[in-house]
Amino acid sequence: MALPLQDTSRLCIHTMTTKPWSLREAIAGYVRADVPAITVWRQHVEPVGAREAANLLRASGLRMVSLCRGGFFPATTAKARRDAIDDNRRAIDEAAEIGAPLVVLVCGASPELSLSESRKQILDGIAAVLPHAQAAGVKLSIEPLHPMYADTRSAVNTLRQANDMVASLSSEQVGVTVDVYHVWWDPDLESEIQRAGKSIVSFHVCDWRTPTRDLLNDRGLMGDGCVPIRQIRGWVEAAGFSGDIEVEIFSDAWWATNQAAFLEKTRSAFIAHC
Amino acid sequence: MALPLQDTSRLCIHTMTTKPWSLREAIAGYVRADVPAITVWRQHVEPVGAREAANLLRASGLRMVSLCRGGFFPATTAKARRDAIDDNRRAIDEAAEIGAPLVVLVCGASPELSLSESRKQILDGIAAVLPHAQAAGVKLSIEPLHPMYADTRSAVNTLRQANDMVASLSSEQVGVTVDVYHVWWDPDLESEIQRAGKSIVSFHVCDWRTPTRDLLNDRGLMGDGCVPIRQIRGWVEAAGFSGDIEVEIFSDAWWATNQAAFLEKTRSAFIAHC
Repeated sequence: MALPLQDTSRLCIHTMTTKPWSLREAIAGYVRADVPAITVWRQHVEPVGAREAANLLRASGLRMVSLCRGGFFPATTAKARRDAIDDNRRAIDEAAEIGAPLVVLVCGASPELSLSESRKQILDGIAAVLPHAQAAGVKLSIEPLHPMYADTRSAVNTLRQANDMVASLSSEQVGVTVDVYHVWWDPDLESEIQRAGKSIVSFHVCDWRTPTRDLLNDRGLMGDGCVPIRQIRGWVEAAGFSGDIEVEIFSDAWWATNQAAFLEKTRSAFIAHC
Repeated sequence: MALPLQDTSRLCIHTMTTKPWSLREAIAGYVRADVPAITVWRQHVEPVGAREAANLLRASGLRMVSLCRGGFFPATTAKARRDAIDDNRRAIDEAAEIGAPLVVLVCGASPELSLSESRKQILDGIAAVLPHAQAAGVKLSIEPLHPMYADTRSAVNTLRQANDMVASLSSEQVGVTVDVYHVWWDPDLESEIQRAGKSIVSFHVCDWRTPTRDLLNDRGLMGDGCVPIRQIRGWVEAAGFSGDIEVEIFSDAWWATNQAAFLEKTRSAFIAHC
């Protein structure tokens, strides 16, 4: 088990965690709450554009952790697959412009395709954008998503699959993201984290609520669920990860509350439970 | 890929699929719809008692496939674990009385326990009731549940785990249930079905809807989702399974409709998609 965190020096917040805030409001809110790092979602960049987002972020002094999200490669037509690849190249450009070293990939899935076909198209898609990522100096990260998202969000549902993909792509430019929400149930989690080793490029936390009332937007604040977050942090750190710990909470309930107060609760929960 | 089914001779319906019906209504409805086989849930036995249920079932001529469900072994106190074991012995007695050759185990989980502790308690619990099952001539079946149920319903979330448990218990009395809803996403599904071989004692079907609106009660009728049911049936049959194909659908939407009409739809969907 990892030792408790002593401070919030490794705390990163996803702009989706405070979804009601615009990028400008999120930056101001995080700085005010003494949060040192940020992961930016593209939907928060879009209203201001990458150039202005880059200016705001640079001026804030916040540490850029990643851009969320690329991916969504599988599709039923060749045109849609090409469009997805183009969009991933744009995400890479956007990451480079705002100073994010990493684009996190939610790899995609289509209920009209077999899982094996979706998985093949994902690997092909990542291979297709890899040279662009290399040229831009931006890493790509494969994030395995919970099996309950295998119909439309990701056909990569275990860390083993993500590790296999990284091995098959064999590029230092590609790593994996461990999000405790997606992988906490996996009996092979500890061994696959160990296997991932230095290819773990990001680490996301939140909690699994009982009961979970919605498949997408009912994630819990750390401590409000049953995920052994500190134990999993211990495993990723034993594997060599020492980066930021990113709070990514999709929650209709929390989004309906005062976001500054929620941010304070998040800081406390980070220390108490991560 | 398995060949299409030519008739409904292997069709079995779970009483939970037509939940609004009492056991008496379900039996009458299935006989009327020419459904040959039934799996009975304990909550449908309880109002009439096992003896009367046995009489009704015997008189109906329906083939008894299994009793659902035992399990729920993990608990935070020794007393609650003993109570669970006692309750599983009662389920075995009930199965013997109504002529069900099998008790399906939803193994249980507790958000207050680690998954590894829950998994240990499950194995201990099954081992504890095994002599009773042997004496009663009733098989037990470990049903892996979808990872989205790992907090409260089952810490056994992949067929590999279920197979490992069967291997560790090494008794002909224990097998596995393959429910397509729970395992369709698993990249190791085909190989673990092959490994399970003759220990596959039951096969459940329904479908995964997009979007799924509720974690528990939004299962789809076969054909209304993205699960490759016929392909998975081909895998279990290649592994040696030739038993009944059990339709188990939890659905607030379907339960709100006329159950006789729903049963007709189920018969058609069985032929078209299983």
